[in-house]
Amino acid sequence: MNKLLIVGTVAFDAIETPFGKTDKILGGAGTYIGLSASFFNLQSAIVSVVGDDFPQEYLDLLTERNIDISGLEVVKGGRTFFWSGRYHNDLNSRDTLDTQLNVLADFQPKVPENYKDADVVMLGNLHPLVQSSVIDQMTTKPKLIVLDTMNFWMDCALPELLDVMKRVDVITINDEEARQLSGEYSLVKAAAKIQTMGPKYVVIKKGEHGALLFQDQQIFFAPALPLEEVFDPTGAGDTFAGGFAGFITQSENISFENMKNAIIYGSNLASFCVEKFGTERMVALDKEDVVSRLEQFKSLTQFDIEI
Amino acid sequence: MNKLLIVGTVAFDAIETPFGKTDKILGGAGTYIGLSASFFNLQSAIVSVVGDDFPQEYLDLLTERNIDISGLEVVKGGRTFFWSGRYHNDLNSRDTLDTQLNVLADFQPKVPENYKDADVVMLGNLHPLVQSSVIDQMTTKPKLIVLDTMNFWMDCALPELLDVMKRVDVITINDEEARQLSGEYSLVKAAAKIQTMGPKYVVIKKGEHGALLFQDQQIFFAPALPLEEVFDPTGAGDTFAGGFAGFITQSENISFENMKNAIIYGSNLASFCVEKFGTERMVALDKEDVVSRLEQFKSLTQFDIEI
Repeated sequence: MNKLLIVGTVAFDAIETPFGKTDKILGGAGTYIGLSASFFNLQSAIVSVVGDDFPQEYLDLLTERNIDISGLEVVKGGRTFFWSGRYHNDLNSRDTLDTQLNVLADFQPKVPENYKDADVVMLGNLHPLVQSSVIDQMTTKPKLIVLDTMNFWMDCALPELLDVMKRVDVITINDEEARQLSGEYSLVKAAAKIQTMGPKYVVIKKGEHGALLFQDQQIFFAPALPLEEVFDPTGAGDTFAGGFAGFITQSENISFENMKNAIIYGSNLASFCVEKFGTERMVALDKEDVVSRLEQFKSLTQFDIEI
Repeated sequence: MNKLLIVGTVAFDAIETPFGKTDKILGGAGTYIGLSASFFNLQSAIVSVVGDDFPQEYLDLLTERNIDISGLEVVKGGRTFFWSGRYHNDLNSRDTLDTQLNVLADFQPKVPENYKDADVVMLGNLHPLVQSSVIDQMTTKPKLIVLDTMNFWMDCALPELLDVMKRVDVITINDEEARQLSGEYSLVKAAAKIQTMGPKYVVIKKGEHGALLFQDQQIFFAPALPLEEVFDPTGAGDTFAGGFAGFITQSENISFENMKNAIIYGSNLASFCVEKFGTERMVALDKEDVVSRLEQFKSLTQFDIEI
């Protein structure tokens, strides 16, 4: 089985949406990526950090999914990263109510020995220096390195972000971030400019409006599945990235044609994530659900015009 | 050849975008629908009204495209409908600077005798009573009636709009209008509710985010083609509707599967419309351009996952 190395936060979230609010629940980019990738036939490990306030049941939940947590450091006397946010009525925007970095402030990622030759590396949204330090530790060049990032690092750590971008194959960002990073409004132009900064592949996530994959002159688009109700968008982007990276790891094929499939799988898994609060839906999900939704994606997008 | 009857404004537009501004140029929903539908193998006629200030060259432009203008009334001493607008920097929103109804204020549509048995009727955005009066004049029940409308009529003529909606098969509206008409935020729920108001098929236009087709539990999605530059969005929605109605007329097949193709053709033609000011690109377009862009739509959306 191929190996996927995941770096990303494992955290507590407290979420408010128009449909309700949660106490502190399991969250974090690494968590969502790991759960999503676990639907594929692969070995995976998460590199992250938590405090000793992090419940054993959450750790068990990851190991039950066959996620190696030997690289998940538990800091004695430390407190786990906490994020709290409130979504607006349209669920497309949100306010951050609280961010407590806690143990994440001094996070020094340590890649487990047997993942230093991972086939695929998924760098979840974190300080670009942390992401770089993971690449430094790889002893074998990965077949694919995928980088997720956000506007916060463009504002606060742009030189470091530009450095790590030169070392990765794929970047996943949202449309506004692509515009900010490139200075171009057109996403076609933005993607072309971002490709000159390092990543050969640019994935632009547009939330409910789907996702675009760019490489040179090639473009592929996957819609988000139209849903009766979006309950909580938290983690959808990370779930998308986990599905993308997970499928690539399993299939061991980094052609553009296969990346199309990876994008579809990412959208597929993300469409489940938003159906319930936090990780609830992802934890209850089984492979049959994913296959059946793949049929929905086909009928949603496939057509047959004779030219 | 099958017959398509088009009702819609034939007008003057003056447009400002971040890229420049025009004097009074050819515009109007009927014009865009007619030009777009002219790429298919069909007979078409426009029912509309202009003043005698309307230049012969614009009339010639329509007849050169084999559009029957015997139902296009020229009012002696009357002035043609005029709209002027300015687009914001993102081209997704605009301010109306001026609207002069002129001869449109007293428009009484007269369907030409040989189009009272048209196969397909495309009711462009107009007062719902005008749209109804066209249906009244049909002597043979059309295979398909498509209705375009906008929020203005929801605000000012809702009972009349609800009446004409009961008489049509397809409605095309944008996402905000679907939400206003249904009172539902989710487009899936909105489309379901609108289907109970009359139209079996609901097409929701999302501009740069593509278009959705709903019938019962079935959904199809066509993206907008990602473009380096959108120059002028004026007429894109009408061009989309013209492509949709034109393809259905040509193919004489109103199955859901074939409507998927019609939606793709609509998106295809609309992607050209926005490349230049007004009707400029549509007038210069030839069938080879459309076929070649169809290949782009295929590579943009088609994937091949083995389940």
